[in-house]
Amino acid sequence: MKKEGKLIVVSGPSGAGKGTVLKELLDNHEDFVCSVSATTRAPRTGDEDGVNYFFISKEQFLQQIEQNGFLEYAVYNNNFYGTPRKFVEEKLAAGKNVILEIEVQGALQIKKLFPGAVFIFITPESFEVLCDRLRSRGTESEDIIENRLAIAKKEAPNALLYDYIIVNRDGKVKEAADEILACVKAESLKPLANRDIIATYFE
Amino acid sequence: MKKEGKLIVVSGPSGAGKGTVLKELLDNHEDFVCSVSATTRAPRTGDEDGVNYFFISKEQFLQQIEQNGFLEYAVYNNNFYGTPRKFVEEKLAAGKNVILEIEVQGALQIKKLFPGAVFIFITPESFEVLCDRLRSRGTESEDIIENRLAIAKKEAPNALLYDYIIVNRDGKVKEAADEILACVKAESLKPLANRDIIATYFE
Repeated sequence: MKKEGKLIVVSGPSGAGKGTVLKELLDNHEDFVCSVSATTRAPRTGDEDGVNYFFISKEQFLQQIEQNGFLEYAVYNNNFYGTPRKFVEEKLAAGKNVILEIEVQGALQIKKLFPGAVFIFITPESFEVLCDRLRSRGTESEDIIENRLAIAKKEAPNALLYDYIIVNRDGKVKEAADEILACVKAESLKPLANRDIIATYFE
Repeated sequence: MKKEGKLIVVSGPSGAGKGTVLKELLDNHEDFVCSVSATTRAPRTGDEDGVNYFFISKEQFLQQIEQNGFLEYAVYNNNFYGTPRKFVEEKLAAGKNVILEIEVQGALQIKKLFPGAVFIFITPESFEVLCDRLRSRGTESEDIIENRLAIAKKEAPNALLYDYIIVNRDGKVKEAADEILACVKAESLKPLANRDIIATYFE
């Protein structure tokens, strides 16, 4: 029987570079997959259905909630976001490490369901760098940026509830991806994961 | 100011290959050093004073205990073994990761003094493999081997008190050394080690 994969929950403020770090990881390690969330928000330019998100209607979303189709869901900026249960359970059973890139609210729900999941918070090296990054993108209005920064400030204390905090420094994406690997490796070395080996001393 | 190094405590039964794994690590990573223990046991063939151990008399050992010269000490097979305090404290202050290869009794003493140390237990993949390894060395009498195996059995449950259990599989010494690196890396990513970064969100 194949060893079950590890569930990895990744959160962090908008502008932390979560997507870039996860792409680096996924491109180089085929034992990792990323779960695709469902959302009721409208697709933005460049969004691909089934790649960035599954774009569904509010009615479809509510129906899937009723059918227990989500591992977690949350409302964020007036839109629903949810993690489809089936994909995650199948991939874990097939031995893949499954990454959920989700908001803090959803992460707390996952912690109850999967106490053995690895919780990783990604942040730039400071709030100041976060401000600079969001502004230098030049793709969003100052209003939207201010809103994101306010959310980032509000959610930052939750970082201390995660298992690990990874700093995504400018130009150090590979280092950040390697740190995710180290966290997942270290989790697999915890005593409970290896008690069968210790048990052989008593046979 | 240089960031203080990490204290790493390594234990495991005689025959687990702790020395081989640590040599692999130390030979390739100069930010790691191994503490040299003091002992009252007689040097064996090949033992070098100051390399394998500092060989001292029982009187000298007792005097150093009185002068608070050891971080921990323990009696094992009727001999004293201790970790000289000064070396460890100086190296940590200089930013080196310091490895203590010590017995379970000593490890528990270190846990009280350095709650932030990383505790790693090294074991072969099973007790059976441990028996085979000790016997195939062919250097020790069956009496001594039986005694070591009895100690291994007695101490095995303590493995579950360590932070990590690393399995040193035959021919996989590099993998085991890399796992130590992953554990040390992961420890540096824990929330408390990074709370200064989160604090910048509130400035």
